[in-house]
Amino acid sequence: MDLQPPASTATPRRRGRPPKSANGFSETREALLRAGVEVLTEKGFSATGIDQILSRVGVPKGSFYHFFNSKEAFGAALIERYAGYFARKLDRFLLDESQPPLQRLRNFVADAADGMARFEFRRGCLVGNLGQETASLPDALRLQLSAVFADWESHVAACLEAARAGGAIAADADCQRLANCFWIGWEGAVLRAKLEASNRPLEVFTDFFFAGLPR
Amino acid sequence: MDLQPPASTATPRRRGRPPKSANGFSETREALLRAGVEVLTEKGFSATGIDQILSRVGVPKGSFYHFFNSKEAFGAALIERYAGYFARKLDRFLLDESQPPLQRLRNFVADAADGMARFEFRRGCLVGNLGQETASLPDALRLQLSAVFADWESHVAACLEAARAGGAIAADADCQRLANCFWIGWEGAVLRAKLEASNRPLEVFTDFFFAGLPR
Repeated sequence: MDLQPPASTATPRRRGRPPKSANGFSETREALLRAGVEVLTEKGFSATGIDQILSRVGVPKGSFYHFFNSKEAFGAALIERYAGYFARKLDRFLLDESQPPLQRLRNFVADAADGMARFEFRRGCLVGNLGQETASLPDALRLQLSAVFADWESHVAACLEAARAGGAIAADADCQRLANCFWIGWEGAVLRAKLEASNRPLEVFTDFFFAGLPR
Repeated sequence: MDLQPPASTATPRRRGRPPKSANGFSETREALLRAGVEVLTEKGFSATGIDQILSRVGVPKGSFYHFFNSKEAFGAALIERYAGYFARKLDRFLLDESQPPLQRLRNFVADAADGMARFEFRRGCLVGNLGQETASLPDALRLQLSAVFADWESHVAACLEAARAGGAIAADADCQRLANCFWIGWEGAVLRAKLEASNRPLEVFTDFFFAGLPR
């Protein structure tokens, strides 16, 4: 997806505005966001034509700009959507008090690995995909991606702090730095898992991570 | 860079074939490869228009296909070029017998971090950039990228084996798996270093890696 503004000569396939009802608005917007997240977990922005998303949803180009001021605004909405979905997924595992803290993180990893296998390793992480394209992205999106990692790291850091409080890792462990290291390596592992079409990179990295936690 | 074949209507800016001399051939080919590597360490294939590379070198589109049968062939040549350059760089550090084995790997890391800072964190790893685009790449390139990682890993594994032989790491350390883990995390760290425009992710990951080596 290039982030250029639309050409002024773009001709919508349908004239006029899309349905004005609040429902029509939110349903089409929803469908665009859903399709956008799907496509961008597989490919980066640059590899994705906006037309690809529009034709998947059956929305004319003119309507797209009714919902989003620009492609950058669409990108920002996709990151926000994916980041929120993922933060809720993290919470589901990391706040599961029926499990000891480190096991919660292991359970998240196992679920993510299953998810990648289910989509035959075609889908990775939308935030990682876009992060790789820094040189082609507007600065605002770069800062947004950076903030998403900071947020995810705070969830993992809190889980590691719980492990530290329970004595599972060393009392002087720097949980913020360890959480940062987890996400750095995790994104590398997701990249390799896609490339090798295998869960092995996820396993190699997370085994090393858990073994390397200070005790 | 999309990997579509050239449109048959493409009009070269200059008629006829490029100079036939062996020198002219190899110089233009060299210039195309050099520019391609530069651009693809910053951006992925998909974000890069072939025209961008041609205009940088001042070569008309017609000539490009004199040197490379297809964009895929160009991509393969770029990966080969970068992989070879990088394997020689690895050897320069990892075979430096004036240093203990683990220090050699640390020296490589320090040099790579300096290199990223020198280009203001715009340039990362061509192989990592392309690896992220798996879904958009031809299968042959995907396999080639995977083989490059296997090669780089064999260099690091040999260095870790030397460390093991010297007693710096545990006698039962699985050096191949540790080398695999190094490259998984390293590519994640390069991605984050670009995103944050900072060396810190490289430092966080490699500190964790060295601390986590079995003793």
